[in-house]
Amino acid sequence: MKLPLGYLYSATYAGIRQAEKNDLALIVSGLPAAAAAVFTQNRIQAAPVRLARRNLQRSGGMAGAILVNAGNANCATRTGDAVALATSKAAARLLKLPAAQVLPASTGVIGVELDPSKITGALPRLAAELRPDGFDDAACAIMTTDKVPKTAFGEVKLGRGVVRIAGMTKGSGMIQPLMATTLGFVMTDAAVSPAVLRGVLKRSVERSYNRVSVDGDTSTNDTLVLLANGASGVRPDAKDLPKFEEAVARVMESLARAIARDGEGARKLITIRVAGTASGDGAARIARAIANSPLVKTAIAGSDPNWGRILSAAGNAGVAFDPARTDIRMQQVLVCRGGLAVDFEEAELKRKLDDSECDIRVTVRGKGKGTALFWTCDLTEGYIQINASYRT
Amino acid sequence: MKLPLGYLYSATYAGIRQAEKNDLALIVSGLPAAAAAVFTQNRIQAAPVRLARRNLQRSGGMAGAILVNAGNANCATRTGDAVALATSKAAARLLKLPAAQVLPASTGVIGVELDPSKITGALPRLAAELRPDGFDDAACAIMTTDKVPKTAFGEVKLGRGVVRIAGMTKGSGMIQPLMATTLGFVMTDAAVSPAVLRGVLKRSVERSYNRVSVDGDTSTNDTLVLLANGASGVRPDAKDLPKFEEAVARVMESLARAIARDGEGARKLITIRVAGTASGDGAARIARAIANSPLVKTAIAGSDPNWGRILSAAGNAGVAFDPARTDIRMQQVLVCRGGLAVDFEEAELKRKLDDSECDIRVTVRGKGKGTALFWTCDLTEGYIQINASYRT
Repeated sequence: MKLPLGYLYSATYAGIRQAEKNDLALIVSGLPAAAAAVFTQNRIQAAPVRLARRNLQRSGGMAGAILVNAGNANCATRTGDAVALATSKAAARLLKLPAAQVLPASTGVIGVELDPSKITGALPRLAAELRPDGFDDAACAIMTTDKVPKTAFGEVKLGRGVVRIAGMTKGSGMIQPLMATTLGFVMTDAAVSPAVLRGVLKRSVERSYNRVSVDGDTSTNDTLVLLANGASGVRPDAKDLPKFEEAVARVMESLARAIARDGEGARKLITIRVAGTASGDGAARIARAIANSPLVKTAIAGSDPNWGRILSAAGNAGVAFDPARTDIRMQQVLVCRGGLAVDFEEAELKRKLDDSECDIRVTVRGKGKGTALFWTCDLTEGYIQINASYRT
Repeated sequence: MKLPLGYLYSATYAGIRQAEKNDLALIVSGLPAAAAAVFTQNRIQAAPVRLARRNLQRSGGMAGAILVNAGNANCATRTGDAVALATSKAAARLLKLPAAQVLPASTGVIGVELDPSKITGALPRLAAELRPDGFDDAACAIMTTDKVPKTAFGEVKLGRGVVRIAGMTKGSGMIQPLMATTLGFVMTDAAVSPAVLRGVLKRSVERSYNRVSVDGDTSTNDTLVLLANGASGVRPDAKDLPKFEEAVARVMESLARAIARDGEGARKLITIRVAGTASGDGAARIARAIANSPLVKTAIAGSDPNWGRILSAAGNAGVAFDPARTDIRMQQVLVCRGGLAVDFEEAELKRKLDDSECDIRVTVRGKGKGTALFWTCDLTEGYIQINASYRT
């Protein structure tokens, strides 16, 4: 699968994080790209989040570059706004772009001053090293506690030709499904207007990033940007748009799943399917309550078929459903029928739960048509070890 | 301090849990006692919760005994209702009480059938061993993953004489502040009508059990009962009632704090104080968001003064407040002023955070009068170890 046409990438070590590992990345579109973005709903918003939102408004939904650093969230510091502005402007000057067409993003520790000269000093070599196949380097540079880089690709044949989609994302802690979570950058060479792109992003987020949780915490820096630069020369027509949107959503689902799989300390990807509730929203709330239950997540870590915790978590979702019509399956094994215990081979199910993927299905029998798909991970000692001394 | 007059207690090992450790307790009032109770808000409600609620309605808020077992939640099993009914009735017969005056309560694993003959077989010796000083035995018998029994006592001089209050509670996991959490039994020898007692309980719960969280999970079995048997001969008059209520609330606060301190795997009690929000409810929601943040709790476990996580968690509470007027203190050290980093002695604060008690204060400067006090605990590897194999 080829990368989307017309994008350049580079990454470098700017000295923002202590470990000598690339911490600054630049994504540039050769053509002005339509841009849509969603940001954190946390009341505390990092300086780059505020500036990226403002820039998108000023540019009318167009962008030429994304400048992203790891190692420092540029949040809750005295100089944050000035740093975000100065570094974005420096990038714009170097790339000969209008200032509003550079979108900044940051991830890392909150409340530590970010020295802008580290970024401005690294920008010339970052600009000099831009190349079409620097995609993976950029994906690696935005990692924090991530164990693996997270990328996903799509290609879809539309009536007028082929368009390509490539996404990168980061994040394995402070992950909660309340809109764009963590940092994510998705590029396509389709030609789509900013207004249409916003709709595509909004609906795709709903079924991907809004359906993943590691620890129920929503970051101050979450940013997800979708760029469409039209370099393919293919503008999806009305008939093609659903197909294009499906391809974008699939790339984003793949990124969201990758976040859950690489959750801090996680050994298992947990996929939760809820069906039969009155509404899809109700199903999603039940799935989220299960995904955010530390008791469910620790039981899965221990390969413990403790389905009572799943039922209890579902009961805490604040959603009306009839326990007496509720069945639960773990790894396709029926463990609870009509809200009550059923006999199952416990030793066999424990073995199945040792798998690196865990499947939980909660089905309310009846006429309800609500369904939801949700991803999370198990909760292990690793999460504690990573987070007990992240800052220092 | 003396125990409330007119109550008898006993405990025994009925073979419900595998470890040979008392798992069945009986609390009896020699006089018919006014009774008020609050129960879990989980949509899944254990059989004893449903029966206790029904019994209280039938008896018009009077009770003579509480029968409580550990080791099995009697929840989500085929025979649960019949087991709760049969064992409560057997206790009523033995104690010569109306059936509706026995309140059952259970805690332990969900979804495993509970053999009623274990309880009915143990009841005669339980009844035979009832004694006024069996209070601590009963408090020990209701423990599950608790490391220590949890009791609290109060005594208050009213216009007409002295009344005494004694409470016991259990719980260190599946603890979330959404009403009565875990099991709690509070006895007083004051003479109070059921209607008045309900008001006292409701307001006292709001500032005690509703302000504690270990892991954000609400159990299917939470039950908190307040008994007032009048054995002191003292009926608080209108002037005395606030004083009496304050004494009850303090006993319950002490029990709630004990739950947080003994949270599964916890090494530190965390006290969170929020002040300056527009409403008390807003303050409580911010405090709860901080208390339920795994990132805050792991940082405290590691003595890491990562105040950015506190600010971020506050921002996720869904409460309007101005970050630019928000200060944060940890162990009395100002770490964030007006939502921004301030300089502090990091090494010194880390040492202070090694203490077994951690104090977090979030203050919004301005005219807001909302305040809240909340308790939780740190999140350590111990929580994972306990919960990864609780069932098996």
